[in-house]
Amino acid sequence: MAKKNKTAIAPTREQDYPAWYQEVIKESDMAENSPVRGCMVIKPWGYAVWENMVREIDAMFKKTGVKNAYFPLFIPLSYLEKEAEHVEGFAKECAVVTHHKLEKDDKGGLKPAGKLTEPLIVRPTSETIIGESMARWIGSYRDLPVLLNQWANVVRWEMRTRMFLRTSEFLWQEGHTAHATEQEAKERTMLMLDVYTKFVEKYLAMPVIRGRKTASERFPGADDTTCIEAMMQDKRALQAGTSHFLGQNFAKGSNIKFQTEEGEEAYAWTTSWGTSTRMIGGMIMVHSDDDGLVLPPRVAPAHVVILPIFKKDGDNRAVMESAQSLKDALEEKQYHGRHIIVEIDDRDIGGARGWDWVKKGVPVRVELGQRDMAQNSVFMARRDEPSSQKQSMNREDFIGQITDILDNIQDTLFNRAKNYRKENTFEIDDKKAFYQLYKKARGFNNGAFVMAHWCGSEECEEKIKKDLSVTIRCIPFDSPTEEGNCICCNNSSSRRVLFAKAY
Amino acid sequence: MAKKNKTAIAPTREQDYPAWYQEVIKESDMAENSPVRGCMVIKPWGYAVWENMVREIDAMFKKTGVKNAYFPLFIPLSYLEKEAEHVEGFAKECAVVTHHKLEKDDKGGLKPAGKLTEPLIVRPTSETIIGESMARWIGSYRDLPVLLNQWANVVRWEMRTRMFLRTSEFLWQEGHTAHATEQEAKERTMLMLDVYTKFVEKYLAMPVIRGRKTASERFPGADDTTCIEAMMQDKRALQAGTSHFLGQNFAKGSNIKFQTEEGEEAYAWTTSWGTSTRMIGGMIMVHSDDDGLVLPPRVAPAHVVILPIFKKDGDNRAVMESAQSLKDALEEKQYHGRHIIVEIDDRDIGGARGWDWVKKGVPVRVELGQRDMAQNSVFMARRDEPSSQKQSMNREDFIGQITDILDNIQDTLFNRAKNYRKENTFEIDDKKAFYQLYKKARGFNNGAFVMAHWCGSEECEEKIKKDLSVTIRCIPFDSPTEEGNCICCNNSSSRRVLFAKAY
Repeated sequence: MAKKNKTAIAPTREQDYPAWYQEVIKESDMAENSPVRGCMVIKPWGYAVWENMVREIDAMFKKTGVKNAYFPLFIPLSYLEKEAEHVEGFAKECAVVTHHKLEKDDKGGLKPAGKLTEPLIVRPTSETIIGESMARWIGSYRDLPVLLNQWANVVRWEMRTRMFLRTSEFLWQEGHTAHATEQEAKERTMLMLDVYTKFVEKYLAMPVIRGRKTASERFPGADDTTCIEAMMQDKRALQAGTSHFLGQNFAKGSNIKFQTEEGEEAYAWTTSWGTSTRMIGGMIMVHSDDDGLVLPPRVAPAHVVILPIFKKDGDNRAVMESAQSLKDALEEKQYHGRHIIVEIDDRDIGGARGWDWVKKGVPVRVELGQRDMAQNSVFMARRDEPSSQKQSMNREDFIGQITDILDNIQDTLFNRAKNYRKENTFEIDDKKAFYQLYKKARGFNNGAFVMAHWCGSEECEEKIKKDLSVTIRCIPFDSPTEEGNCICCNNSSSRRVLFAKAY
Repeated sequence: MAKKNKTAIAPTREQDYPAWYQEVIKESDMAENSPVRGCMVIKPWGYAVWENMVREIDAMFKKTGVKNAYFPLFIPLSYLEKEAEHVEGFAKECAVVTHHKLEKDDKGGLKPAGKLTEPLIVRPTSETIIGESMARWIGSYRDLPVLLNQWANVVRWEMRTRMFLRTSEFLWQEGHTAHATEQEAKERTMLMLDVYTKFVEKYLAMPVIRGRKTASERFPGADDTTCIEAMMQDKRALQAGTSHFLGQNFAKGSNIKFQTEEGEEAYAWTTSWGTSTRMIGGMIMVHSDDDGLVLPPRVAPAHVVILPIFKKDGDNRAVMESAQSLKDALEEKQYHGRHIIVEIDDRDIGGARGWDWVKKGVPVRVELGQRDMAQNSVFMARRDEPSSQKQSMNREDFIGQITDILDNIQDTLFNRAKNYRKENTFEIDDKKAFYQLYKKARGFNNGAFVMAHWCGSEECEEKIKKDLSVTIRCIPFDSPTEEGNCICCNNSSSRRVLFAKAY
């Protein structure tokens, strides 16, 4: 498998980060662009990662009392009209269904027929329709809280797409809750941000910064938008989840009222929160290297691949049997609620075989030949280490230690990403230095995370965005009170905020 | 909870079976019609049943080597044009996307804008797009078999809808496999029918008849369509799953070719197979009674509900603690891969509380008051027994026997449905008797399953369909060779087939 001084992925991260990203996806066989504009095909290797993510995060939701439901794919046009009323120059990029039939045309082709009296929109979110349902379902304080979540596909017409990060159709979950009190809704907002934090850090091994958005970056209609932000290897930020406290705004818009214990009528307090297949894009960009995908063990579709080493023209049955019994022994072990999953690749295709699994990001690769069998050992390589670095291990030790090895890989990935973020996060107080840093930013070296003072004005926020394409990612919860001066206007400020270029 | 000579659901099954069905769904809080034409909202209680079904059947698929993937929601119009070429008077009821934007119109409303050069169809199935992918992915015999499945929403514009049974949007899975040999594809077709059979009988407690469709009832493009058919309580048949052997037809249409081991080019042999949320409709119609939904324990969102009996103006903390400790003890137990799930309903709303859970179909209800506590007992009712029939059980015995009780309920439901089918299945050799039976059929008494001889001609099949709205549901695999005469034309026949009215 050794292939020194050459990388399995071309271009490398440094050479062309966006092209590297596409190649990692292609070579790992996770997904591909589809013939349908803006949509991707999520192939089995990519979809299995998504399934693992969904299973874990869904279980976390349910532990907090959330229940799943399913709402229609289509939203009547009239539901969006109210939303549009207050927006100057409203234009929504979305898929519009105008007909309900296909008929043959004169040229032997097909044409739309059966025009709808009211066009339908393919849901960009289900917010309006879930709001409408909540308004009908909630009558009294006894009906509260309502804690709903939906896993579904949504569509937003995107002009420039990138697999997992921005596609016209994507998979996501959206949670919507309604409460009798402001306090309870605020607690729920933070509880769901906690769930996202735990999931993204524990399962995707992505360290995140937790905080709240500035007013201008808030979700429309939210009183407070909280988020988790992760650093990609090109030093740009990716928002890996958001949780919104909507106050009574959404309830007023959707007419979600209830009778209080005291017999009065009141609007409910609501929250909403979401994550999507975008998280997969983030996971790829945080951990993968110039040899391809690197998967955190806790969401990997397979934990171990066994590569039996065959002798030319020899009898390889013993090797295959040994591989199978190793697989059986490993698969008896539990790892984070699943059993260990092992693939055996017995293709006789030479060195390409090992590289295939490097590029697919499987956490542990094991070579097993007759010499290993004679020594009761296995030849083991970890995906978090250079591909040439392999070690011989006693077979029973390997079986006994496999869950520790996987946990160690998981921890290594998390710590590596955390150190990387630390190395690329700076406190800057000098405007010139701030501007220089981001003006030099190119490609892989897309600047840094900068903790800098901000006066709180939208003007300064806007100016920096315009000048540098740098935004305030969040006001971190753990940013301490500190006297300082705004990086833009030099007015006084009491706290640093997180600046970065963002996906 | 006793309410003799009155049923919780009005009308009863005998009075108006279709109205009874809608009421069962409404009163169980499984689903409701949405404001979007033809679409339903699957509420948490209904969606949890679907999640349980998906989890089990998906695990069964994966055990056979199937992998999940995800394909785009939209199908380009041109993909369907080829299909339409060969069909006279082709008209497809489907949702057609013609625009990708909404803009304000003159009256302050919204209008579709950004017309697409090629309309997109919301997938009625993903067959064409999966075929296109397979054609690209498969090059050599080494790439085979390809065993794909997709869980997704699909849309078929329906004029008359009924929740779960026929809605414009529904949830389903579609499996598509490609093989190097005819034999292997045929075996896969049967393997997936076996999976459906096992799932529907073991989990939904619905006995099914396995067989193949006649040529006229076959899936278009299939060489062989196999199916499972279940009897509803109104004696009509519902197809609960199909598995198709497509020969090389689909491969030729989608250009799925591969290089054989001998270096020659050949078309692949393919299969497809599917089930949907329709199964939920079947499950409801097979087991539910005039008091509402009856859930098979293996797919129930909750297995046990505990109803603490409160004393007026007394101290009810001890009762609540006792209920909680009972819940904890029960939830430590495993039942078919999940732990036992217990709800405590402490609402103080009188008799309506117990009836709510009867109508929701929870397999076991437990009343627990101070007297029961004093006697270390629980007052237990099973949903498969009349609602007035309750029994006092020693608390530890109840905890110890809960999985047996649930299995017993599951078995009872299955056997009851099997006996019901047996009582309503007849061998008929006389045309007049056959016609009389179905001509009398009305409402709840929608005839029967009839095993009758058929000569094999489409004319006879068509005539019976036209005269009686009765179709050949399948040619059962276990129908023995037997000399006889066609029920329609009296010509000789070698085998009985299954006739019924169908959903």
